[in-house]
Amino acid sequence: MKALVKTRAGRGAALERRPRPELGPNDVLVNVQAASICGTDLHIYSWDPVMRNRIRPPLIFGHEFCGRVERVGSEVTAIRPGEFVSAEMHVSCGHCLQCRLGQQHICANLKIIGIDLDGCFAQYVKIPASNILPLDPAIPRDYAALLDPLGNAVHSVLAGEIAGQTVAVVGCGPIGLMAIQVARACGASAVYGVEIKPQRIRLAKQVGATQVFNPKETPAVAAVREATGGAGADVVLEMSGNPKAIQQGFQMLRAGGRISLLGLPVEPVTLDLVPDVIFKGATVQGIYGRRMYDTWYRMLALLKAGVLELEPIISARLPLERYERAFSLLAKGAVSKILLYPNGIPK
Amino acid sequence: MKALVKTRAGRGAALERRPRPELGPNDVLVNVQAASICGTDLHIYSWDPVMRNRIRPPLIFGHEFCGRVERVGSEVTAIRPGEFVSAEMHVSCGHCLQCRLGQQHICANLKIIGIDLDGCFAQYVKIPASNILPLDPAIPRDYAALLDPLGNAVHSVLAGEIAGQTVAVVGCGPIGLMAIQVARACGASAVYGVEIKPQRIRLAKQVGATQVFNPKETPAVAAVREATGGAGADVVLEMSGNPKAIQQGFQMLRAGGRISLLGLPVEPVTLDLVPDVIFKGATVQGIYGRRMYDTWYRMLALLKAGVLELEPIISARLPLERYERAFSLLAKGAVSKILLYPNGIPK
Amino acid sequence: MKALVKTRAGRGAALERRPRPELGPNDVLVNVQAASICGTDLHIYSWDPVMRNRIRPPLIFGHEFCGRVERVGSEVTAIRPGEFVSAEMHVSCGHCLQCRLGQQHICANLKIIGIDLDGCFAQYVKIPASNILPLDPAIPRDYAALLDPLGNAVHSVLAGEIAGQTVAVVGCGPIGLMAIQVARACGASAVYGVEIKPQRIRLAKQVGATQVFNPKETPAVAAVREATGGAGADVVLEMSGNPKAIQQGFQMLRAGGRISLLGLPVEPVTLDLVPDVIFKGATVQGIYGRRMYDTWYRMLALLKAGVLELEPIISARLPLERYERAFSLLAKGAVSKILLYPNGIPK
Amino acid sequence: MKALVKTRAGRGAALERRPRPELGPNDVLVNVQAASICGTDLHIYSWDPVMRNRIRPPLIFGHEFCGRVERVGSEVTAIRPGEFVSAEMHVSCGHCLQCRLGQQHICANLKIIGIDLDGCFAQYVKIPASNILPLDPAIPRDYAALLDPLGNAVHSVLAGEIAGQTVAVVGCGPIGLMAIQVARACGASAVYGVEIKPQRIRLAKQVGATQVFNPKETPAVAAVREATGGAGADVVLEMSGNPKAIQQGFQMLRAGGRISLLGLPVEPVTLDLVPDVIFKGATVQGIYGRRMYDTWYRMLALLKAGVLELEPIISARLPLERYERAFSLLAKGAVSKILLYPNGIPK
Repeated sequence: MKALVKTRAGRGAALERRPRPELGPNDVLVNVQAASICGTDLHIYSWDPVMRNRIRPPLIFGHEFCGRVERVGSEVTAIRPGEFVSAEMHVSCGHCLQCRLGQQHICANLKIIGIDLDGCFAQYVKIPASNILPLDPAIPRDYAALLDPLGNAVHSVLAGEIAGQTVAVVGCGPIGLMAIQVARACGASAVYGVEIKPQRIRLAKQVGATQVFNPKETPAVAAVREATGGAGADVVLEMSGNPKAIQQGFQMLRAGGRISLLGLPVEPVTLDLVPDVIFKGATVQGIYGRRMYDTWYRMLALLKAGVLELEPIISARLPLERYERAFSLLAKGAVSKILLYPNGIPK
Repeated sequence: MKALVKTRAGRGAALERRPRPELGPNDVLVNVQAASICGTDLHIYSWDPVMRNRIRPPLIFGHEFCGRVERVGSEVTAIRPGEFVSAEMHVSCGHCLQCRLGQQHICANLKIIGIDLDGCFAQYVKIPASNILPLDPAIPRDYAALLDPLGNAVHSVLAGEIAGQTVAVVGCGPIGLMAIQVARACGASAVYGVEIKPQRIRLAKQVGATQVFNPKETPAVAAVREATGGAGADVVLEMSGNPKAIQQGFQMLRAGGRISLLGLPVEPVTLDLVPDVIFKGATVQGIYGRRMYDTWYRMLALLKAGVLELEPIISARLPLERYERAFSLLAKGAVSKILLYPNGIPK
Repeated sequence: MKALVKTRAGRGAALERRPRPELGPNDVLVNVQAASICGTDLHIYSWDPVMRNRIRPPLIFGHEFCGRVERVGSEVTAIRPGEFVSAEMHVSCGHCLQCRLGQQHICANLKIIGIDLDGCFAQYVKIPASNILPLDPAIPRDYAALLDPLGNAVHSVLAGEIAGQTVAVVGCGPIGLMAIQVARACGASAVYGVEIKPQRIRLAKQVGATQVFNPKETPAVAAVREATGGAGADVVLEMSGNPKAIQQGFQMLRAGGRISLLGLPVEPVTLDLVPDVIFKGATVQGIYGRRMYDTWYRMLALLKAGVLELEPIISARLPLERYERAFSLLAKGAVSKILLYPNGIPK
Repeated sequence: MKALVKTRAGRGAALERRPRPELGPNDVLVNVQAASICGTDLHIYSWDPVMRNRIRPPLIFGHEFCGRVERVGSEVTAIRPGEFVSAEMHVSCGHCLQCRLGQQHICANLKIIGIDLDGCFAQYVKIPASNILPLDPAIPRDYAALLDPLGNAVHSVLAGEIAGQTVAVVGCGPIGLMAIQVARACGASAVYGVEIKPQRIRLAKQVGATQVFNPKETPAVAAVREATGGAGADVVLEMSGNPKAIQQGFQMLRAGGRISLLGLPVEPVTLDLVPDVIFKGATVQGIYGRRMYDTWYRMLALLKAGVLELEPIISARLPLERYERAFSLLAKGAVSKILLYPNGIPK
């Protein structure tokens, strides 16, 4: 099969022929119909420092996709060939404390397909049956390739009350844009975007932000406070990972509100805990991955209901062979999500 | 002032001239712009058995309204004359256990304006300042007269998770219809109505029900199970008060789901607790009134956001003088909500 | 091996020689050190109507036990021979909606070891590795044979707030007695027992009930209300399954409280929903099994901490061979828990 | 009456004669039986920078006390002279967003008696009736003078699950010591103290800590991890306010755990959010004051149940006249709580 392989410690990747994965008794082989590129994939491709100690080449990378089940292992009964599926790519151990408590998404022994194991930038990918999610045919194929980041957004939005709440989404990259949509669909009364890139500001408005504040032009903390009658936002979703933006996120939160942190700062962040957390009686949440499988259930229900419009977030569609073009577009930062098609772009 | 008065123990009511209410230091006088008739008001008017031990004539009844602040008592600082307001008509004591625990809506010493004290079917009504809710001008006046029942719907819908959940609304009277809208606006992935009256079935579809099942034609339990892939509804909102419908509500709930009971059955109800509650691990909630003031905050935010469309639920608009016509229409059961205007119908 | 077998549809059971269970790749074989008899086992033994359609003889019954791991299947890595263990005997399917949402205890395809599959009244029992719970050596062996019912108690007590709450335990059989202990250990400010059998009343006081009310002598609803300053209990744990007691349980609950239903009534129960659930804003919970594995984690932590004293609940200890004596004692209703030792009573 | 007055901007305070407070219609006058000195009072006495912009002399300070009701205002009906009471000294406005949502403890317009208004270091103190808490006679008088800090501890402990959880209490000053007791009483399976002062280490063990780690001798993060089987503590209660200790608190938290921040650092704190919050899926809570009045209800219930032993936390008892001795003892840091008696030490 064709596969995009991180062949060595260094920049780039290579399109190679590889044997189809061998299945264990509890595995499922999926024919990849569409894959999507994550910021992490760009880090792998560019061999950024953050990935150098994690990735062990050679590795087929990629962890956002959907496809059709090709074949199932001997012990698999709940999944059948031909089914339209996606997958949770975080593989949990099943016996650590977190797994036992229903928190498999923060399993102590997590392995990630596409990072620790061969991933989905290939014609076929092997997935443990327990991680396969059958999809309703009503869900568009290209949306189904975006469930990993959409799940991050749904996990963040639904980590607390959202209906009838004012929300600030700090950082309107792909997941921030999805969060805006999800929050609106789930009854947020107003969603304020905070973003500096013009293209993302435009997209944020397009997907439903009530207002978008550009901190380069407007003091965002004051703007959110004013828009919320002085109180601050009931909910802040931090999706930038930028230390200064994180600090502002805490400042624009109302007393008694919650701030959910998804963006990953590259360095420790200094917080003024007394006014911004303690006196506020704030709730701060770390958000990682997707709850297994509560997040999936609700995300798929929202998609089936047709209340999310992800098309504006898809910037380009390319066959897998044009991966260099895809990574080069992403590196420029001018685009949102790019889809790759290992088995060719369907009509 | 003009006022609709329950003058005596017996059928009917009379339009009379009454002095304007005298204000205590913590009271607010409101000029009533629009009032709405509740099922309870019809019970009072018809002098149904359920009300005979509660109401002590003479009483100005009516407890759903909006208006303009006319005057405020000497100690009132947070409310100003001229403000557009509605009110929570349940007056809690402030010192019982429930009040101390933030559950004032189930205060042990509750008094209800329009039932225990003079109400809003009059040109003016007196309200304690703490119960006044200032309204955003973006909220349409006639919607603002419906906040009491809309609050019941919001309280029911938001009493647990709703986003990405399948919902069955059992009984599509005015509050059921509102609940359908609120559930959709808050991300319910599908909302199934259960109703037997053709007009209500039509309205339920109009306000956004995914499907409506008429138990006279379709076994509703089986229909909801089938529509939810065999599992049953994640959430059941019981708004009929009909004992048989309540039983069916429990049966159509999925294992692990929640059923919120708002409708008031006139007799005890026999429940098959083992299969329908215990083995299901179900959560059953009694819903009364509106949370003070969490429900109000979220309801007003949803209204301000413009995501609720209540117009289809308003069946008629009449000046207060035509109250006999209003109650006669309601008694026939062919209509949804009727608005009364004690100060005349505005243009 | 020796095993107590339900050999046929009819009263009784027989001690027989059986081959040791064969292990699949994910199974664990446990040498049973102590087993305990459940009310369900008495129903099976007596061939009561409730069990006739469920049990398919021949079957080794019994589902409460602890033991030492004898051998593990080829794929089992997290469990080692020699470990001191117990097990969750409810085996969930892993792919139904409830399983996917972390509610495996109410799995749609549940199988129970000792009811649907051969159980623990034998020298050895076969258990799926995922259902094995390793035990801290600090936990006494005989307590470890009681984790199934103790888990019911912990699940009930911890299904909502308990610290600083007043609690009524309706029905002081073994699980009720355990619930009294667990509630006290978890900060309940007062625990009122409701029970009619003198021996259980005595035990309830012994394990820490603040007061015990005998409905044959004292109106229990009035007594609990009076003891709670008129408000009613914050929490009611229904563990009797008696319809009249269930009704009283609802009546003694305070407005805004929660009632958790664990006892299984043999017939539908008529509830006065308006005063007892709806106007009260009550929360009613069906409690089944043990949360997998949150309940276990917390139960084992409490046992390790040494804050539970289960000895008073153990009425007799017998070798497996004396099973007839054990069931005859239980049938008389004069005892609490009886332990059986398939491999002989340890010194 | 006698009163301890902060007479001017500068070190110290003076015992003076002052007129008894005049009551408004909703006020209550309390005869102070015992008062307790808070760390904040020491800051006021010492005129530390943190208080210089807050306090406006002359002011009677002190905000921890109990007493007997002497007289009530004309509108007060729920409180009677002679009652044994304490009070919540945070006076909320009643109409800001937080107040409306049941979060009065973080009211946007909070006034504190003893800081913004005359307090309890006097023979009499004036309190709004709504803030008065009647006390059960079973509660010891001297414990009743400690409800303000005890409420901080109860608020922190009960801000999430506690039964069957491992807990680390970082900082074993008076509130930390109380938190150890409360956590044990509410079913924490193990409570690890982290403290450097020998006297506090000794007290922490005395009030029930499972183990106490001195970071000067033992790496506390590693010690808590080891004590919890490698996972880290389920719950961390941060009560030191020390930036380095706060960082360590985050590090000793298990993935999926919660950390509640009560201690007030004097400067911003740098946190490594990715490993310590985000990848951990941690919940971080700011804890301020006491929930009004949920915290009080549960605290008083625990005290009435007799499960808290506060005597070891009381270091000294002095008449109000010996205030200089009291503040000098506290300034040395060698003592825990000191009680003052404005009306003389009772026998």
